[in-house]
Amino acid sequence: MNKTVAVLSAMSRSLLEPRLPEWVSPRWFTSTEELFEHAPDAEIGWFDLYKTQDMAQAMKLATGLKWLNSVYAGLDGFPLDLLRERGTVVTNGAGINAITIAEYVVMGMLTIAKGYREVVHAQDRHEWLMDSPGKVELAGSRALLLGYGAIGQRVEQHLRGFDVEVTAVRRTPGPQTLGPNEWRARLGEFDWVILAVPATADTERMIGAEELAAMKTTAAIVNVARGTVIDQEALVAALTEKRIGAAFLDVTTPEPLPADHALWSLPNAHITMHLSGRAQDRMFQRAVDRFVKNLARFQAGETLQPKVDLTAGY
Amino acid sequence: MNKTVAVLSAMSRSLLEPRLPEWVSPRWFTSTEELFEHAPDAEIGWFDLYKTQDMAQAMKLATGLKWLNSVYAGLDGFPLDLLRERGTVVTNGAGINAITIAEYVVMGMLTIAKGYREVVHAQDRHEWLMDSPGKVELAGSRALLLGYGAIGQRVEQHLRGFDVEVTAVRRTPGPQTLGPNEWRARLGEFDWVILAVPATADTERMIGAEELAAMKTTAAIVNVARGTVIDQEALVAALTEKRIGAAFLDVTTPEPLPADHALWSLPNAHITMHLSGRAQDRMFQRAVDRFVKNLARFQAGETLQPKVDLTAGY
Repeated sequence: MNKTVAVLSAMSRSLLEPRLPEWVSPRWFTSTEELFEHAPDAEIGWFDLYKTQDMAQAMKLATGLKWLNSVYAGLDGFPLDLLRERGTVVTNGAGINAITIAEYVVMGMLTIAKGYREVVHAQDRHEWLMDSPGKVELAGSRALLLGYGAIGQRVEQHLRGFDVEVTAVRRTPGPQTLGPNEWRARLGEFDWVILAVPATADTERMIGAEELAAMKTTAAIVNVARGTVIDQEALVAALTEKRIGAAFLDVTTPEPLPADHALWSLPNAHITMHLSGRAQDRMFQRAVDRFVKNLARFQAGETLQPKVDLTAGY
Repeated sequence: MNKTVAVLSAMSRSLLEPRLPEWVSPRWFTSTEELFEHAPDAEIGWFDLYKTQDMAQAMKLATGLKWLNSVYAGLDGFPLDLLRERGTVVTNGAGINAITIAEYVVMGMLTIAKGYREVVHAQDRHEWLMDSPGKVELAGSRALLLGYGAIGQRVEQHLRGFDVEVTAVRRTPGPQTLGPNEWRARLGEFDWVILAVPATADTERMIGAEELAAMKTTAAIVNVARGTVIDQEALVAALTEKRIGAAFLDVTTPEPLPADHALWSLPNAHITMHLSGRAQDRMFQRAVDRFVKNLARFQAGETLQPKVDLTAGY
């Protein structure tokens, strides 16, 4: 039988190669150049690279691509219109990093609540602090959760264990939820505003000067979505003037953040360099497990999971 | 009617004075000297000071003391034998700080898991890290919980929300628990060893060279009990030789830790200066609420809560 050509990153070769079915003919790439060389032959592609624009270029070259897989959850920068026109099915990494990212969110909240960065600096100086630089308890506080995918749902689970009152924003109404047009009017009620939304046209700059002004002066923003979800200039101004309490930013605009950017030095800005999803060592194992399951579905003509809605963008 | 003399720290005066019943005659003290002066008259005493030896001295002077209250949970350093002989009832702060201390435990685990101290230092340098210095997930890890009082029970609640498999050590057997003589043989199974026991003769140096040797080389100890619960020299040796992964020490021997102590500089030792209980601003409110309830019980001849067992020491 004719084999199906799969162009695959060599990053996952040691885990994936022993589990590839007979009908797959793999082309492993170890560089952007090799990816560009093989892409035109690809029927199945797993094109993950650090640079989104190189991945996008490979997608343009892959004119015969039936199925594109990625370990990334956010597909901003992908040529989604082109993929939709071609009928390429796209599966992404939604949920693969959710466990560690949700843990990172809670770490951010706790470290801000207890002033932990100042404790670290005191240890650096061998100084025994006599009082806590932070005196906030998570218990009894209120969190607004924007984004209720795999990450948001785990964050909610964790926070309930801390007796945090969580309000999620969802399109479908339910108990302890607000609709997409309801949360802005209620911003002043929350101690935490957690951003775990996909990066789409709808979510771009959803937190701007008006939203920041509506927040409590003690409230903290936690962003594990994308830097573009926040109007970053407005955020720097709000943090500088202490109109909000703090920001825990796993994502920024741009990334990496230039060394002279104001955010690095603000005492109430906590920069974590898009590490939240990397703070685990099971990502490749989980991604390969899922890819192998999807190979079986692909061969059987079944729906791949999780299949990206190329119009919605997630 | 004859009023009952209560010798009370002025720290809680603003909260407590308006709520004192008629039958109480308060003597507020603002210094150790004033406490020593009033102590001999005290029938009820709330003698909290920073220095335990001064509190103990006041207890010796208070020969007519019927009820001693403290905001502290740990009573090591108190003359418990003397109080027992005199028939003084002692109520302590067990549970008052449990919420924030339990939150602190989880913060310690998360910051160690994700290598957060190195992220803080990278921000100090304005450096965008390309990979996470820590890659551990709490989810799926295993924790041994020594001490199942108010703190331990809240820690367990939090960790279950993170899908951590928690095994508690309890005198009374139950599911997912080990007895006091069973845990040592199982130490090698756990990723986290959490110490939240009271400081008594039974728990002194319960973690020594043998216990440290039995732990996983990747395991982390979290101590929110007392420094004396660990053989600190053995711990420094184990951390220096990387025979265990890390220690998150809210408590040390002595406190404050001298500036030239080895623990300050070890890359796998995290010192938090006994701040865990102070990382909240509701302690006095909660303590006063409890004291006022106990005043009513005292007047009615009912049992005060939580009443310390002066033989067990907690």
